[in-house]
Amino acid sequence: MRRCAIGLIGWGTVGGGVLDILHRDAAMLRDRVGLDLRVSRIVTRTPGRLPASAAHGGGVSSDIADITGDPTIDVVVHAVGGTGAAKDLLLACLAAGKPVVTANKALIAEHGDELFAAAAAAGVPIAFEAAVAGGIPVIAALRDGLVANRIDAIHAILNGTCNYILTMMEQAEQDFAEALAAAQGLGYAEADPTLDIDGTDTAHKLAILARIAAAAAVPVSAIRVEGIQAITSDDIASAARLGCRIKLIATARRTTAGLDLHVAPTLVPLDHPLAAVMRNHNGVFVEASNAGPQLFTGQGAGALPTASAVLADVVDVLIGRAAATSRHFSLFAGGTQPRTVGEAEEITGSYARFLVPDRSGVLAGIARILGDRGISVQSLHQDRPAADGRAIIEVLTHPSRGGDFLAAVAAIDAAGLTAKPTVTLRRL
Amino acid sequence: MRRCAIGLIGWGTVGGGVLDILHRDAAMLRDRVGLDLRVSRIVTRTPGRLPASAAHGGGVSSDIADITGDPTIDVVVHAVGGTGAAKDLLLACLAAGKPVVTANKALIAEHGDELFAAAAAAGVPIAFEAAVAGGIPVIAALRDGLVANRIDAIHAILNGTCNYILTMMEQAEQDFAEALAAAQGLGYAEADPTLDIDGTDTAHKLAILARIAAAAAVPVSAIRVEGIQAITSDDIASAARLGCRIKLIATARRTTAGLDLHVAPTLVPLDHPLAAVMRNHNGVFVEASNAGPQLFTGQGAGALPTASAVLADVVDVLIGRAAATSRHFSLFAGGTQPRTVGEAEEITGSYARFLVPDRSGVLAGIARILGDRGISVQSLHQDRPAADGRAIIEVLTHPSRGGDFLAAVAAIDAAGLTAKPTVTLRRL
Repeated sequence: MRRCAIGLIGWGTVGGGVLDILHRDAAMLRDRVGLDLRVSRIVTRTPGRLPASAAHGGGVSSDIADITGDPTIDVVVHAVGGTGAAKDLLLACLAAGKPVVTANKALIAEHGDELFAAAAAAGVPIAFEAAVAGGIPVIAALRDGLVANRIDAIHAILNGTCNYILTMMEQAEQDFAEALAAAQGLGYAEADPTLDIDGTDTAHKLAILARIAAAAAVPVSAIRVEGIQAITSDDIASAARLGCRIKLIATARRTTAGLDLHVAPTLVPLDHPLAAVMRNHNGVFVEASNAGPQLFTGQGAGALPTASAVLADVVDVLIGRAAATSRHFSLFAGGTQPRTVGEAEEITGSYARFLVPDRSGVLAGIARILGDRGISVQSLHQDRPAADGRAIIEVLTHPSRGGDFLAAVAAIDAAGLTAKPTVTLRRL
Repeated sequence: MRRCAIGLIGWGTVGGGVLDILHRDAAMLRDRVGLDLRVSRIVTRTPGRLPASAAHGGGVSSDIADITGDPTIDVVVHAVGGTGAAKDLLLACLAAGKPVVTANKALIAEHGDELFAAAAAAGVPIAFEAAVAGGIPVIAALRDGLVANRIDAIHAILNGTCNYILTMMEQAEQDFAEALAAAQGLGYAEADPTLDIDGTDTAHKLAILARIAAAAAVPVSAIRVEGIQAITSDDIASAARLGCRIKLIATARRTTAGLDLHVAPTLVPLDHPLAAVMRNHNGVFVEASNAGPQLFTGQGAGALPTASAVLADVVDVLIGRAAATSRHFSLFAGGTQPRTVGEAEEITGSYARFLVPDRSGVLAGIARILGDRGISVQSLHQDRPAADGRAIIEVLTHPSRGGDFLAAVAAIDAAGLTAKPTVTLRRL
């Protein structure tokens, strides 16, 4: 039985999950892969809160040198958030020749080139399965399982907080604030949920998926990002009438003009596989050129799902698979960046909800402006006017250039045909 | 650029798919993993049907010695069906020290112990991602991605022919024969579809999944198998009334009594993720102890999806990952077999459709027999009698021992309460 020593940096949700699984399942891992895994050193800013016995042999401290300087440590689990000190800690481990497993999506997304270059220089791998979609092994699926495919598109639900909020708004008829509070009560949302609901967290994960799928550096800044903070109960109701659900969808898609990268609340038809991904689950839908469409769903966050992915990476490192992978898959882009297409060029089906005064000619006016600009209507629905005389007209379009559609909607608003600025959504 | 030579045995659907992908996507693979993959030798029973130029350099022949005796061949793609000659060919390659990639599920399921022992003796890996669920990388997910989990249950749709037939019976209201003919017309079903529709093919795949998930040899003979050949339009209609779909489900589940292994037509509630797996797609639902529930769906068969998985394995072999895996994951059980539970002990929700004469006391009689045997009814539905005076009573039960339920149904039939033998189904 080979004994393996893990150095753990950080003792938050992910680090705690790793300790929990090793405490309970070490014998299972010994049986399954012949490795005796132990955390021999924990480095945390608050070592006093942990008993020294939490780490086997080595103990608990606050000095990274206790890991980088310890020749007995085989692999480092980097379970630290943020992109400041977290980056320095990761680089220090690489410089010391330690393979690193991290769950830090922001760090990989924003500093991937620097980190992978440092890893290549040090001759050690960085593994990061846990950085995207928690316990779902989707990094390995895209990079290894689908290696013989061009990845034509990824559409993914990557933030459990947003998906839980949208699920509750639909199923429990809660408004946004109620649903957010419910998510916080269950621990799905942070006390400050800004980076979840504004789409930033999803964009970080999309940048990582796109880097693997497109084999190119995808800067986070190239991703157009809208969050779900403006979604109202009216939007949820409109989606239901159209046989759709609203999901926060991260898209990376090859087009003839370049890579279409965006995060946006999107109408997902109920018969699309992603529509069935509910509550705090994540789902990654991949269009692979040879394998065809695939869907991966499961828990995208939480201590144990994330630690499950971390420990899969630890095993990959210890048995030599991670090194074999990093020798062959260059995740360091070396300066090349794909051309990305902007919203104006994006080809998408679209939705608009017009609030209109009850007077003749409005419907004809809207239809004429859409037609003049080459927007092909797939379906149109007009409700009876409300007591105030205003009516709602909903339009679903066939795919068109996003810029053309938004310009048409702006023209409709500018022509005085609507009673307030028109709500638009993309459609999957 | 490292040149790698593949020896291909068999030139059917899978072998053709491998040639197609390498013909079209060789440059993509070079860019992505730095390997220049070529099929340098094809061995087939019908070499005359292929031009020698189909293989780079080596040519086409019918003699396996042209692969086993060729020191330049790095890896063998074994794309031969059956368990007779196919086994000898695979063993010959192992004996010659060649790593082997195979898509042959029957061979791995029925002779896995012998094959993995031979591979271990030869010090080369056998890779078989393509043997289960086609292009979906589910072997790697279970073995590697979920390594830090006890797999508590797998419920899977593993045969695209059956799933297509069941989908058409529901959506196009075809009867079984019409749906089968449609599947054959689309190439989803073989001319002789027996092994698909009787559940044998699904059982082979389940045996492989269970071997990995339970880390133990699971003989195909331990799997209770029912096919879909007896499913009628009445069953499909009943399922719809109950908010379910009928799917051919392969189950491997840990219970306190042992491993529950069965393949059977099963009522799947519409809100279960597997209910959304339609047409010829496969779906694998996994309950993992730390990562939680996960679902993987996609194309489970066909030339390109299967070849996608084969080539992922080829890359794994060539960059050393497959060898690292096979050194650590013992798939050769060495004589241990898990205890498996029989139908009598299986804990399952059940369904029965009783055709009853229209006379008083029948419903009470059925309810009494179920109650006496400890079967707890979840819902009961009685239609108005048809013109012939007979009525249908449908019962869904809470989970109970399958043996108790079947005994109760037999007692109900024996008591003369029913007009014909009662139809039963499991419920997911």
